[in-house]
Amino acid sequence: MDRRQFIKRSGAGVVAGAAASTGLAAPAIAQGAMQWRMQMTWAKNSPLLSTGAQIVADHITKASGGRLSVRLYAAGEIVPPFQVLDAVADGTLDMGHGYPAYWAGKHPAMQFFTPMPFGMTTQEQNAWLSYGGGLELADELYSQLGVKFFPSGNTSVQGSGWFNKELNSIADYQGLKVRSGGLAAKVLSEVGATPVQMPLGEVPQALQSGAIDGADFVGPMNDMAFGLHKVAKYYYWPGWMEPCGLIDCFVNMAKWDSLDDDLKEIIRGANWMANQIMLNEFVAKNAQALVQIKATEGVEVRTLSDETLSALAEAAKGVVENVATQDPLAQKVYDSIMTFSKMVRPYTVISEASYINVRPML
Amino acid sequence: MDRRQFIKRSGAGVVAGAAASTGLAAPAIAQGAMQWRMQMTWAKNSPLLSTGAQIVADHITKASGGRLSVRLYAAGEIVPPFQVLDAVADGTLDMGHGYPAYWAGKHPAMQFFTPMPFGMTTQEQNAWLSYGGGLELADELYSQLGVKFFPSGNTSVQGSGWFNKELNSIADYQGLKVRSGGLAAKVLSEVGATPVQMPLGEVPQALQSGAIDGADFVGPMNDMAFGLHKVAKYYYWPGWMEPCGLIDCFVNMAKWDSLDDDLKEIIRGANWMANQIMLNEFVAKNAQALVQIKATEGVEVRTLSDETLSALAEAAKGVVENVATQDPLAQKVYDSIMTFSKMVRPYTVISEASYINVRPML
Repeated sequence: MDRRQFIKRSGAGVVAGAAASTGLAAPAIAQGAMQWRMQMTWAKNSPLLSTGAQIVADHITKASGGRLSVRLYAAGEIVPPFQVLDAVADGTLDMGHGYPAYWAGKHPAMQFFTPMPFGMTTQEQNAWLSYGGGLELADELYSQLGVKFFPSGNTSVQGSGWFNKELNSIADYQGLKVRSGGLAAKVLSEVGATPVQMPLGEVPQALQSGAIDGADFVGPMNDMAFGLHKVAKYYYWPGWMEPCGLIDCFVNMAKWDSLDDDLKEIIRGANWMANQIMLNEFVAKNAQALVQIKATEGVEVRTLSDETLSALAEAAKGVVENVATQDPLAQKVYDSIMTFSKMVRPYTVISEASYINVRPML
Repeated sequence: MDRRQFIKRSGAGVVAGAAASTGLAAPAIAQGAMQWRMQMTWAKNSPLLSTGAQIVADHITKASGGRLSVRLYAAGEIVPPFQVLDAVADGTLDMGHGYPAYWAGKHPAMQFFTPMPFGMTTQEQNAWLSYGGGLELADELYSQLGVKFFPSGNTSVQGSGWFNKELNSIADYQGLKVRSGGLAAKVLSEVGATPVQMPLGEVPQALQSGAIDGADFVGPMNDMAFGLHKVAKYYYWPGWMEPCGLIDCFVNMAKWDSLDDDLKEIIRGANWMANQIMLNEFVAKNAQALVQIKATEGVEVRTLSDETLSALAEAAKGVVENVATQDPLAQKVYDSIMTFSKMVRPYTVISEASYINVRPML
């Protein structure tokens, strides 16, 4: 029996004697210990992404004294990555860790949780989740899909992408073949580019061969891990397509409902903790990777011009509004984000940006 | 016996039958239930600040199923606010919730945890804590004072202050009487102002009577709660004195050491959770308050000029470097912050700021 079969057959739920394999002290896991399976949509050891999922699993296991032990599986270990949400909903898995955009096919409103072109920053989105009605809307959406939602990490603002052609004006997008997906791909189409869908692993070769002219990816650290700085000349900023990147964690709804209150509270804590620490890791390691990218011969880090961004924003407005009209819940989420954004943006500009803009003088 | 005496006599530690008063299910708190006392340096119901402390207390109590029940006390309920750290160290209290700057008199290095003029943003400081060596340095510092440290909230970047005189150039600081404290007060002295120490509650009247010309405070929501928008004409940004405002939580070291591993992990989770949710509340409610402040007749929201900020930064550099030379650990913390800042600032500029700066075009 190979490992995968073993995992399938052993299943989830109450596992007698789970203590032995975790090394926890005996009294803490004496009776009623449960072992849960959480699969992520990321490969094992994906820089930054798998770390967050591991924080969730480890915290729940430790904080519950082994009463609820969560074992983490990588993409494909139990189900293919894009089936994680379904597998959690139907109980094949107990928990999942992914990216709302991956579930866009299940509900149009998913596209507003992340990433939304020209939308909220990470700090704004977190504030919206806690105090702008975001968590309640996420609960409404995810519960329709049979799972309990938690915010569980954030990529922070991403790059605009790697290109082998200069983007000096919006006209330069005309005819450009760009690896992209989701709403960003629709915006690129609007401005005359040709979005190309392709697995991440094929991107470096496609850029090198000229099969594509550009690719939007994640951020400096993940992009470097894939070697994009070796096959593209220009690294453009800012990431108007993905100004934040919320990572979601979800629990099978029936299993969530059946949990004791203390375990529910531990799972909440685990996810807020991962939400913060994963962001911390993205910021620290992206900053480090950006230093290396800038020092790489043949790579130029650039920012898009105001005029280019203005034209992209105009195109994005239509694309985003169109998604909102597809469904009443999508419209409700969109309206909530727009109301909150209108309030929070002037504060973000005068507090965060006005400080960062002047600070390098020190 | 009045309430305070009762509190003093009942003390902290193992409390039999703590279950009855918390309403928790009997099995979870059957034996060995502990009741801890956490005092904050804030008044009861302080906007935003007391919320964070309450999150910590509630999470620990709920996630431990009542095994460790934390009761929250406001400033002065057990000890005066600025004695909270000492009271936790000597075991009068089990936990405390405050602001590193309040403990500056105990160790010069405290001034680098928060707030440091022209220092890190909230997002950068969190990244530094987790992945830049900050947590290890905080552990080194706080353990010397007999307590275990946790990051437990953040005010986000604060305002530059409320003034009844215009600040058009650095020369306008000459002779200005400004309520301020800590390193900011030293910087203000350097540029010719006269910093004035006074309790928060006296600030509104002092501004109104002209006894002081200006005051740096917290952020829009807290400032409004004190009525500063009714007694000052100009609200200046950005908050160069306090670009982030780390809130600290600390546990008596001997009690921390004696805890089971699962309770330690729950306390860690409670603080990361509070660290994130308190920031979320500051961002959402500051944004809302700023809208109201802007709509207040007779109040002008302004930003300091580049030249003014440049001169303040020059003065701040000397003040901060001087603190570093006072003690080897202070120097070590300063060097760590400077190394991390050098790496992270270009990333913050090209990711966060370059995005926020262009976004209002949508």
